[in-house]
Amino acid sequence: MKRARRPLDFGALLGLPLAIGVVLSAHVLEGGSARSLWQPAAAMIVFGGTIGAVLVSYPFVIVKRTLLSVWRTFGEVHETPEKIVAQLIEYSHRARRKGTVALENDVDRITDPFLRGALMLAVDGAQAETARQVLDVDHVAQKEAGEVAAEVLETAAGYTPTLGILGAVLGLIHVMGSLSEPSKLGPGIAVAFVATVYGVGAANLALLPLATKLRGHARREALRREIIIEGIVALQQGLNPRLIEQKLHGYLTPTRIDAGRRAA
Amino acid sequence: MKRARRPLDFGALLGLPLAIGVVLSAHVLEGGSARSLWQPAAAMIVFGGTIGAVLVSYPFVIVKRTLLSVWRTFGEVHETPEKIVAQLIEYSHRARRKGTVALENDVDRITDPFLRGALMLAVDGAQAETARQVLDVDHVAQKEAGEVAAEVLETAAGYTPTLGILGAVLGLIHVMGSLSEPSKLGPGIAVAFVATVYGVGAANLALLPLATKLRGHARREALRREIIIEGIVALQQGLNPRLIEQKLHGYLTPTRIDAGRRAA
Amino acid sequence: MKRARRPLDFGALLGLPLAIGVVLSAHVLEGGSARSLWQPAAAMIVFGGTIGAVLVSYPFVIVKRTLLSVWRTFGEVHETPEKIVAQLIEYSHRARRKGTVALENDVDRITDPFLRGALMLAVDGAQAETARQVLDVDHVAQKEAGEVAAEVLETAAGYTPTLGILGAVLGLIHVMGSLSEPSKLGPGIAVAFVATVYGVGAANLALLPLATKLRGHARREALRREIIIEGIVALQQGLNPRLIEQKLHGYLTPTRIDAGRRAA
Amino acid sequence: MKRARRPLDFGALLGLPLAIGVVLSAHVLEGGSARSLWQPAAAMIVFGGTIGAVLVSYPFVIVKRTLLSVWRTFGEVHETPEKIVAQLIEYSHRARRKGTVALENDVDRITDPFLRGALMLAVDGAQAETARQVLDVDHVAQKEAGEVAAEVLETAAGYTPTLGILGAVLGLIHVMGSLSEPSKLGPGIAVAFVATVYGVGAANLALLPLATKLRGHARREALRREIIIEGIVALQQGLNPRLIEQKLHGYLTPTRIDAGRRAA
Amino acid sequence: MKRARRPLDFGALLGLPLAIGVVLSAHVLEGGSARSLWQPAAAMIVFGGTIGAVLVSYPFVIVKRTLLSVWRTFGEVHETPEKIVAQLIEYSHRARRKGTVALENDVDRITDPFLRGALMLAVDGAQAETARQVLDVDHVAQKEAGEVAAEVLETAAGYTPTLGILGAVLGLIHVMGSLSEPSKLGPGIAVAFVATVYGVGAANLALLPLATKLRGHARREALRREIIIEGIVALQQGLNPRLIEQKLHGYLTPTRIDAGRRAA
Repeated sequence: MKRARRPLDFGALLGLPLAIGVVLSAHVLEGGSARSLWQPAAAMIVFGGTIGAVLVSYPFVIVKRTLLSVWRTFGEVHETPEKIVAQLIEYSHRARRKGTVALENDVDRITDPFLRGALMLAVDGAQAETARQVLDVDHVAQKEAGEVAAEVLETAAGYTPTLGILGAVLGLIHVMGSLSEPSKLGPGIAVAFVATVYGVGAANLALLPLATKLRGHARREALRREIIIEGIVALQQGLNPRLIEQKLHGYLTPTRIDAGRRAA
Repeated sequence: MKRARRPLDFGALLGLPLAIGVVLSAHVLEGGSARSLWQPAAAMIVFGGTIGAVLVSYPFVIVKRTLLSVWRTFGEVHETPEKIVAQLIEYSHRARRKGTVALENDVDRITDPFLRGALMLAVDGAQAETARQVLDVDHVAQKEAGEVAAEVLETAAGYTPTLGILGAVLGLIHVMGSLSEPSKLGPGIAVAFVATVYGVGAANLALLPLATKLRGHARREALRREIIIEGIVALQQGLNPRLIEQKLHGYLTPTRIDAGRRAA
Repeated sequence: MKRARRPLDFGALLGLPLAIGVVLSAHVLEGGSARSLWQPAAAMIVFGGTIGAVLVSYPFVIVKRTLLSVWRTFGEVHETPEKIVAQLIEYSHRARRKGTVALENDVDRITDPFLRGALMLAVDGAQAETARQVLDVDHVAQKEAGEVAAEVLETAAGYTPTLGILGAVLGLIHVMGSLSEPSKLGPGIAVAFVATVYGVGAANLALLPLATKLRGHARREALRREIIIEGIVALQQGLNPRLIEQKLHGYLTPTRIDAGRRAA
Repeated sequence: MKRARRPLDFGALLGLPLAIGVVLSAHVLEGGSARSLWQPAAAMIVFGGTIGAVLVSYPFVIVKRTLLSVWRTFGEVHETPEKIVAQLIEYSHRARRKGTVALENDVDRITDPFLRGALMLAVDGAQAETARQVLDVDHVAQKEAGEVAAEVLETAAGYTPTLGILGAVLGLIHVMGSLSEPSKLGPGIAVAFVATVYGVGAANLALLPLATKLRGHARREALRREIIIEGIVALQQGLNPRLIEQKLHGYLTPTRIDAGRRAA
Repeated sequence: MKRARRPLDFGALLGLPLAIGVVLSAHVLEGGSARSLWQPAAAMIVFGGTIGAVLVSYPFVIVKRTLLSVWRTFGEVHETPEKIVAQLIEYSHRARRKGTVALENDVDRITDPFLRGALMLAVDGAQAETARQVLDVDHVAQKEAGEVAAEVLETAAGYTPTLGILGAVLGLIHVMGSLSEPSKLGPGIAVAFVATVYGVGAANLALLPLATKLRGHARREALRREIIIEGIVALQQGLNPRLIEQKLHGYLTPTRIDAGRRAA
């Protein structure tokens, strides 16, 4: 597959700064100062509170892995389904001619751990059914892990807006002492509202979009692993490479090929 | 099936301008100026923010395809289930008399890619079970794609109202400096509220209705593909055209026929 | 079954005016004028906007059918499960003695289209398995149609309160020009709030209750059709009327009989 | 089972007055008068409106039965799983020695209709499979009925808070005429807010807790019926009482025994 | 497994005080006094009301057990999947050489009741299928219990924010008498808002995070029990220890091992 066919996922690279930048620009354009949106106390309540609540909600290992997953969805580009299918078909031809042992050298060159593990099972001569079982257990576990990462961000996105309201209410409580002095009241209320901006903004411009992104990424990775499992099992069953090709192309109908491309 | 039986889907053509027009007219009727509802900063926050958030949430290819799907639901008119059933029955009669090869010329005249693909499988003499498997994989993939399109709009509809509130709060923060000058305060608050109008309006008058429309469209297309699969598989099994007719008419009970008509 | 056993469904007949009347009376009782709740602009925004949004969401045919379903749940009284069971048992006795052909005259006297269709299948001598398949397809299609009707109302009930808020915000934008004149401000805000009353009232006093009613109705109709399918299939299998009776009475356990009665 | 082991379900008896009392006391403690919370118009809107909406939503029979279910969860104390298991084991021993007919006298002494019905089936010599089918139909119907009761309360709890807001908005519309007279405005707003107190209070201090209670009750009753079905079917299969004992004790693992106890 | 590999779950120990402390500090930092956040009446409404509502919702035994579960998730550290697998493999080797009776002494040294129960079944010579059934019933019951505990906290978290609003509205009703005296109005509103702080804070900084934590804990415990069941059943089937090892390692793929570690 040629590189040119992979549209650049600039959504992932530009969307986040775009979303936040556009909101800030609009505020400044209207005559507001960007400075007025910087309130450390509000940030402490919304972000500190959210971090605390997330640390109670999930073991530290899971939180760390979620941050890693977010980081990876921006950079890491896995093979498209098309390329995986092509590779599996090539392996099946080679295995036909020279036996699965001939694939031993390929194992070291593969960077994707799931494909490498699957091929190693084939090279070691594992039974088709055993290979499927072993790979399925890992597939399901990885799928769960991907969904947990999205879940963590959604949980956090559930805390931030309400903590934003909490911050606003705390600010209003503070301001209520100057109810009779409109000159102090105005700025006080403005400060209180900043917490709401943080909470609603963090949830809708960052956390929820990233959670949706992670969920989509996990789905595409799962599709890729399914293809690998089908291919390796078929290879172990000694199926005719032609038949394997026909079988795996089912995953590459126009729609799926498309879906694969965007996995880039 | 005669064209006259297809009621014009004027909901799709008139609903959107109606919904937005009626709200604007009511505002003007009440003495408000339509001009006062045009606030570029608010539009930037609500629409710019939503676009950014959606681009982070989904790969660019999916966003593009969603826009295409929205465009298509207004214009593209697929065959009704009735017509599909009639066509499949005709094919089965012809295949009975002259063999499936006799359908070869029909393939080129079909514009619907799914029906064409299915018929090509029949002409090529694919086994009934293989045909079903190949078509099922494509059917499921297309169904998922249709649901993803609706999901993208619903996700966007989740961002706009909260970004509308974000815009209003930012506007209120800006306005709080003039709390002691009611003559400035009023217009300031009015401007701030426009963001809410944008957010709530975009979600409820456009995004959510379109998402519901896409979901319904995807369901009807899925029904049409199911009928095609059943028909082609029955044809490949060499069933009696009479039996095929009886089988496919199950999809055309009064209720379903009705549902089909509106698919126009 | 005697008519006297069917409690009058006065909820359906009195609930709607009661709900709306009680709210209006309370408002007047408090010294508010009913006239102040009549604001054409607010009505245009909430009801016009909702109609537009619903027309975009669903094909016109479905919207029309939903209104028909609402109308019917108030008037149309179907047979209770008890009566259906009694009738099916009678049919099975007659079919035992004189053959299913003897039921031919009954077909014309039946007003319920599903029961008539089922009996016609029996009279035509359809195989038990074929009869079940044909009836099941129709049963499922009707069940889906019933659920779609409830779904349309729920979708509308999702639009009205938010459009009520939209109307209120538009009203407040309009009113903000008179922030320094409390004598004008008050009535202006009052007018703006009427949109909220329309939106919240329409959703909670009409649309959502009617959606729940339709869903319950659809469930009871589905139970009735299930009984008919079981009865006709048993009859076609030539089961002993005694056995059919025992089988169908399973649907008439104390709880279910009760549930049947209220279907009146 | 000794009575002393059944902890008094004082939650059911004290929780409701506690929840409402504590809120009222706090209001009075703060210097508010309990009298100020009594507003007939607000009560009409919130409770009258909810009653109307519920009567539209559900047939009258179901509403009546829901009220009965609420009443019963406070008073009616069913046998715990432990006691049921003990009783079933005793029956199986007796049936072993003297035949199921020997259980005839027990039937009259049983107050629980489900157990009595099940035992009658055994005494009548119904086949194990038939007994299971008949009892299952009833079991499922009762479970549905229990869930419908909880659903009715949840539906009502969905109406009250929004009708509370409706009442508040209506009150504010009324009050807006006196916007320039703070001396009248204050009490007017206070009155308007009482509707919100009614709506939020009724949903959160009564309706939702009772719905949760009904759902839990329905689950425990379902467990009890499952045990009875397993026991009676095993008895009809003529299993060794020892084996029946072993089988039924599966339902009494530490956790389940505990769950049973609290069913008291 | 060495202790050092178990990362300290400091989220559980630090998250809760962190979340609450950060919010309080921010308030004080802004110049608010911590004292102003102490309002007994508001606490009575929010916490008293929630306790009452929870006591109505669930039997007292379940509420007590939920509190115990919360307490335990902080302290109790169960064996990781890795260690459990190692132990089960060791048992299988020993059972192979000396028979399952040789495991009798181990039973007393096991503190985990589920593992002890499972091993006792093996020592008693229960059939593999019987052992699986008995253990499955207990496994499912414990899983349900774990989910109920999370559910109780979520139910409570549903009551607190709305009761916080109830408290605020009650406070505002009280304050409305002094609408014309800004000097009294401000502090009054401040007091009213404290109820909202309690409600939103309790739900988002404590109840919801703890519910999520309990749910995760229940999932990890379920995984551990599944491994034990698979291991003991395999042992009873007299499988080769090698095969048991291979089977159980399926649960320890990189991802799962990781998931296990954090169970510490």
